[in-house]
Amino acid sequence: MGEANAIGVGFLGCGVVGGAAMRILSRHADEIEARAGVPLSVKRAAVRDPRRTREVPPPTAGFTAEPRDVIHDPDVRVVVEVIGGIDPAERLVQEALAAGKHVVTANKELLATRGHDLMRAAERAGVDLLFEGAVGGGIPLVRPMKESLAGDRVRRVMGIVNGTTNFILTRMSETGETFAEALAEAQRLGYSEQDPSADVDGEDAASKLAILASIAFNSRVVKDDVHREGIRRVGPEDIRAAHDLGYEVKLLAVAERHEGQVALRVHPSMVPRTHPLASVRGVFNAVFVEGEESGELMFFGRGAGAGPTGAAVVGDLVEIARNITTGGRSPGCTCYRERAVVRPPEEARVRYYVVLSVLDRPGVLSAVAGVFADQDVSIASVRQEGTGDRATLVIITHVASEGAHVRTFAGLDRLDVVKEVVSRLRVEGTGEE
Amino acid sequence: MGEANAIGVGFLGCGVVGGAAMRILSRHADEIEARAGVPLSVKRAAVRDPRRTREVPPPTAGFTAEPRDVIHDPDVRVVVEVIGGIDPAERLVQEALAAGKHVVTANKELLATRGHDLMRAAERAGVDLLFEGAVGGGIPLVRPMKESLAGDRVRRVMGIVNGTTNFILTRMSETGETFAEALAEAQRLGYSEQDPSADVDGEDAASKLAILASIAFNSRVVKDDVHREGIRRVGPEDIRAAHDLGYEVKLLAVAERHEGQVALRVHPSMVPRTHPLASVRGVFNAVFVEGEESGELMFFGRGAGAGPTGAAVVGDLVEIARNITTGGRSPGCTCYRERAVVRPPEEARVRYYVVLSVLDRPGVLSAVAGVFADQDVSIASVRQEGTGDRATLVIITHVASEGAHVRTFAGLDRLDVVKEVVSRLRVEGTGEE
Repeated sequence: MGEANAIGVGFLGCGVVGGAAMRILSRHADEIEARAGVPLSVKRAAVRDPRRTREVPPPTAGFTAEPRDVIHDPDVRVVVEVIGGIDPAERLVQEALAAGKHVVTANKELLATRGHDLMRAAERAGVDLLFEGAVGGGIPLVRPMKESLAGDRVRRVMGIVNGTTNFILTRMSETGETFAEALAEAQRLGYSEQDPSADVDGEDAASKLAILASIAFNSRVVKDDVHREGIRRVGPEDIRAAHDLGYEVKLLAVAERHEGQVALRVHPSMVPRTHPLASVRGVFNAVFVEGEESGELMFFGRGAGAGPTGAAVVGDLVEIARNITTGGRSPGCTCYRERAVVRPPEEARVRYYVVLSVLDRPGVLSAVAGVFADQDVSIASVRQEGTGDRATLVIITHVASEGAHVRTFAGLDRLDVVKEVVSRLRVEGTGEE
Repeated sequence: MGEANAIGVGFLGCGVVGGAAMRILSRHADEIEARAGVPLSVKRAAVRDPRRTREVPPPTAGFTAEPRDVIHDPDVRVVVEVIGGIDPAERLVQEALAAGKHVVTANKELLATRGHDLMRAAERAGVDLLFEGAVGGGIPLVRPMKESLAGDRVRRVMGIVNGTTNFILTRMSETGETFAEALAEAQRLGYSEQDPSADVDGEDAASKLAILASIAFNSRVVKDDVHREGIRRVGPEDIRAAHDLGYEVKLLAVAERHEGQVALRVHPSMVPRTHPLASVRGVFNAVFVEGEESGELMFFGRGAGAGPTGAAVVGDLVEIARNITTGGRSPGCTCYRERAVVRPPEEARVRYYVVLSVLDRPGVLSAVAGVFADQDVSIASVRQEGTGDRATLVIITHVASEGAHVRTFAGLDRLDVVKEVVSRLRVEGTGEE
């Protein structure tokens, strides 16, 4: 197992994911060589403080504070970018591609905003740009969707792609805790940052959805195309009501193809317990894909963490090494449809579950039903609960546009007999879509 | 979109899967060309009766009764084998490889018995041999396991890989039907052949497990290496008992790496309801993979059927077309460990659930517990149910060897106080493995 023919790898960043990838490359060196057909050798890694003691096996040419030392090292043929964020990651990846280096990145933010430009740059340079670790951590998603589903046409992608929010919602479902209590527990366990906004407001999920939708629909979409609502407003009463109806509450990232347009949204949703996504608990992630030919598919696993994401990075490195030795190339940009026509959020086709606090007197249901009818929103089921001061109506609608639903809620707010719209959540995964 | 540079495809067989693949190639021609970078054109198809009217788009050079016409057609660069079975499929695939043709097959039996020889032949010929459709129908499994997990080390594969038996067990679980009743329903719906043996005796699952294990452990294993037990003996009382304990009964195909050996077994198992495999219902399939780095992964979807399997075949064709145009090669045989050391079935590490019909008198538990202790099988829980003539003990063991369990059951049979070993099922997915 000589190092002479080894393929040199350089790292930009050596944090949790980079460190894990370096550890895996060293620990499983024999197996990786057998799979790649050639050894992989970490030559250099750019880090903020090269003198700090680290627990990872040191690169053969050591650490450096200067990213350019890595990029322009003639022995480095593949650059792994694990800095995260847009700047300086974008600049450095562009520089690496321009220098003819293959690139592996796990940077979802970068890909969800500048992915298209980077893929084009890789194409021009004749190199691979792989990013299996950017979505779903260790869950194989990018490669199966790009390659295994190349014989199919994807209709819808529906995912639980943020582990922190799924942990919080699972905890709320299983213990009855409030959002604030469950978030505190997630922070205590290290599943959430001190500033949880990126997770709980759906930002992280939106980035991942943009990447998945670009691949699934062969169309260029970016994070800003995704309508997003977080889980801060989900209360224990929503979860209890969901349970009563046989549902779980999940933060879903949904991308759909509809009449030549693409609709993209992230929001809390009620999912029937019989749906495979409903049983995805804790920090696990899962992506449900509906193909015209393949039907329903689901990919499940750990969506984050050093080991899973590090293994995904190494899997990409093995593929690039194989390509270098066989002269092949991985599928590049699959956005042959270019810029997608993004459907305005108010035109998304959705179902809603609504809880109304109402006056307990004759004629209430008729007045409420009238408001739905005015907007052509058809009611699938309605149930009265409680009496007197505690009278509520629990309503589930059939599919109608988001806009018609929003106008219905406004109409209900203006109705004398409705004291309050207590709760409303979209309903997904019922097969009526 | 000219045909001049099109890559010619030939079909051996044109049944359910072949017909679906030909239909997809025609219906999605534009998208497939965009993904492959070149059009795919079906030149010829060998069928038993070329004059029969068929609903598939006819090949450009028509149908033929002679497989060699397809294999040796100079315009055919890729041969799709969808005849099934070993003979003549093996001979024809070998002939195609020897003629320098790339091959796509969905033939699990062929791969589970002769896969290694065929992969070697493809390597010698410098062509691709792809088979995503052979396991799990439309579920991407082969490519993710070969490529995405190339940075990981798989510890265990645990799958529901036969839709017919999963339909039968789901039906038994949800309606309380007997095996015979549920089988009759599966036959009525066309989910089971008139002779159901290949499905219900675990033969089909064993073939698929051999293929998955070969990839997961980079070791050559064949169908005959798989210990198999079917579901004919599973009764409504087993299912009821499982429900009482919070379990479902599933036919699992399990492959494990243990002390340098590989253990392979197919048998009905109790799976906790909280395990992702427990919620796989009806004809759906799912494969659960435990990687050292990635942790738990699951791939879920339709494990059979024209559309899913046809789409998998077309996905392989797109990959080969890309390889032809870029000059690349897909990963070939990944069995770099060669022949695996297969662990004898009696050394498999398992847990059991056992129901004993016992005499209702003092000292029974002590006598029964003594038999377990004699074989060093430790008891995780024991519960007495019923009294008098209907007294039973429900026991769940901790992990011990299959052999120790079998000797324990023999010892229980000989015990005066035990009237009968009413039921016994292995318990999987509890995390104690």
